[in-house]
Amino acid sequence: MEPSLAQAAAPDAGRKPGIERLRLLVADDMAATNREILHRMDSDVRLIPELASHLIAAGGKRIRPMLTLGCARLCGYQGDSAVLLAACVEFIHTATLLHDDVVDESDRRRGNPTANVLWGNQASVLVGDFLFTRSFQLMIKTGSLEVLGILCGAAAEIAEGEVLQLVIANDTASSEADYLKVIKAKTAALFAAACRVSAIIAGRPAAEAQALDDYGHNLGIAFQLIDDAMDYAADGATIGKNTGDDFREGKVTLPILLAIARGSETERQFWRRVIENPADQTETDWPQALRYIERHGTIAETLVRARLYGEKAKQALDIFPAGEARAALSEAVDFAIERAL
Amino acid sequence: MEPSLAQAAAPDAGRKPGIERLRLLVADDMAATNREILHRMDSDVRLIPELASHLIAAGGKRIRPMLTLGCARLCGYQGDSAVLLAACVEFIHTATLLHDDVVDESDRRRGNPTANVLWGNQASVLVGDFLFTRSFQLMIKTGSLEVLGILCGAAAEIAEGEVLQLVIANDTASSEADYLKVIKAKTAALFAAACRVSAIIAGRPAAEAQALDDYGHNLGIAFQLIDDAMDYAADGATIGKNTGDDFREGKVTLPILLAIARGSETERQFWRRVIENPADQTETDWPQALRYIERHGTIAETLVRARLYGEKAKQALDIFPAGEARAALSEAVDFAIERAL
Repeated sequence: MEPSLAQAAAPDAGRKPGIERLRLLVADDMAATNREILHRMDSDVRLIPELASHLIAAGGKRIRPMLTLGCARLCGYQGDSAVLLAACVEFIHTATLLHDDVVDESDRRRGNPTANVLWGNQASVLVGDFLFTRSFQLMIKTGSLEVLGILCGAAAEIAEGEVLQLVIANDTASSEADYLKVIKAKTAALFAAACRVSAIIAGRPAAEAQALDDYGHNLGIAFQLIDDAMDYAADGATIGKNTGDDFREGKVTLPILLAIARGSETERQFWRRVIENPADQTETDWPQALRYIERHGTIAETLVRARLYGEKAKQALDIFPAGEARAALSEAVDFAIERAL
Repeated sequence: MEPSLAQAAAPDAGRKPGIERLRLLVADDMAATNREILHRMDSDVRLIPELASHLIAAGGKRIRPMLTLGCARLCGYQGDSAVLLAACVEFIHTATLLHDDVVDESDRRRGNPTANVLWGNQASVLVGDFLFTRSFQLMIKTGSLEVLGILCGAAAEIAEGEVLQLVIANDTASSEADYLKVIKAKTAALFAAACRVSAIIAGRPAAEAQALDDYGHNLGIAFQLIDDAMDYAADGATIGKNTGDDFREGKVTLPILLAIARGSETERQFWRRVIENPADQTETDWPQALRYIERHGTIAETLVRARLYGEKAKQALDIFPAGEARAALSEAVDFAIERAL
């Protein structure tokens, strides 16, 4: 029999790891970041702050800006640029979400109706553009061309990854390599950049910048693997994302890729039918998909992989001295993974 | 009787002014710019260059990069940054067009089916994002934070203007001031930035940078006024834009604003009906709109205003020494206006 999800993913789970340690560590800087975000998303065109605040105020975890601030703390940084960059990465992320929801035709996010439902696709596209440009203005304020290069590179990679995701959507023949490429681009690139730039503004050596990049990169992959697993497991009402969204959109994520690879010919026919033409799915397809996924234990396997990336992320921190910042960043990895359980 | 369009707009028209003089002046740099554009829009994700080249190769006039290159010539600039910035402004413009066509649900541009028709809204949004990020990467390559600030400021203004345009769409009570705000933001800001940055990379004094900004700003307003006038006059097949597009979308541009202001109560009722609910327009509404617009001569008046802005643009060049570059930039203004006739 397959091990249960909890056994597979957290064999030593005792106390549930939280993001609280990191949140407390950077509480003051995060308050300053929130003020910066509110200030920078303002505009005489009232629709802009209205729409942006719907998403930004809607209780996102602010994981990316927390990482920037936590890494800045780890690097002993004392200046003002960390807050600017924390706001910047949250803006890039928010702009991406706005465009994603248009692209995916999503109707709910974090338990709320999406901006495209409330204000229309047009406003979501244009306010997303506005937030993108604001994020670049925030980078420029740091005065560091190296920081600009890193964050713009990440933004370009995100866009490229989103296009690739669109290209391989509904394609049951797409490879695990393609899938990894997509999540590296659309999620890990911004996590990596959000962490790396802290070392740059702190003037730390290249090895430390690389270590923070590795930390963010591997954490980002783990984070996305968990997100994709949760779409087949979690209670939609609790996490505010609709369970089964990926399935209904015909998005080919790791739980499905593995189920296709291990399934019988009958199962593969099922996957081709529901993924290639998701609009024709019937009511019984979703429970059938869950049964096939459980049969091959592909959620548990996705979580196992997430833990492997999580371990790499934590190891990357080893070159930094032990202390509260390193411990908080390390615990954030456990949180990112075990929030699924 | 109202004067004809040609009489109102070009009382001294003899030889038709062309963009050829500017095109010849910057021909070598434009060839380098085109190579840079092709190089920078490439990606392993083949959909990106396919979609981007559809729009970029589709015979746009490349007016913005020509302005950057022409102004750089006027400033005696000799380095490599002008070509990078010329490619950059074309990318910003192209990204904007891709998102515009999604927002406007357009089906034709420059005589071709739009990218959103051929590849879908999703691909258009995401490839637009990709080109935006590439444009920022091109700016960064110049190594000038001042250039970055100018172009990012313009990009933010464009996005803000597009949102404002969306907010006042279908609103016959919107003011001429709102309309001017929109065209300054969505068109003049990028024209101004495309010209100003040439003075910056050439290390010219602030007064010259400001003069080029004024030139681009006023030319941009004139250019957009003409575009908006042509939507009610030109032969769609010739200019590759559908005549009547703005009308069918309920977009409130100057020809309509003036017709509303001068119309009888019956006419104002007509405008409210067709603009506020454009989906309910009938076949006779478009010819009726043209009759009202002609009755009040609002196209001719739009062209008169365009000429006033055009004169300001030309005057802004006065602080530069006479010569081929100044003459070519001046003639580009006449072209921008008289292409309508």
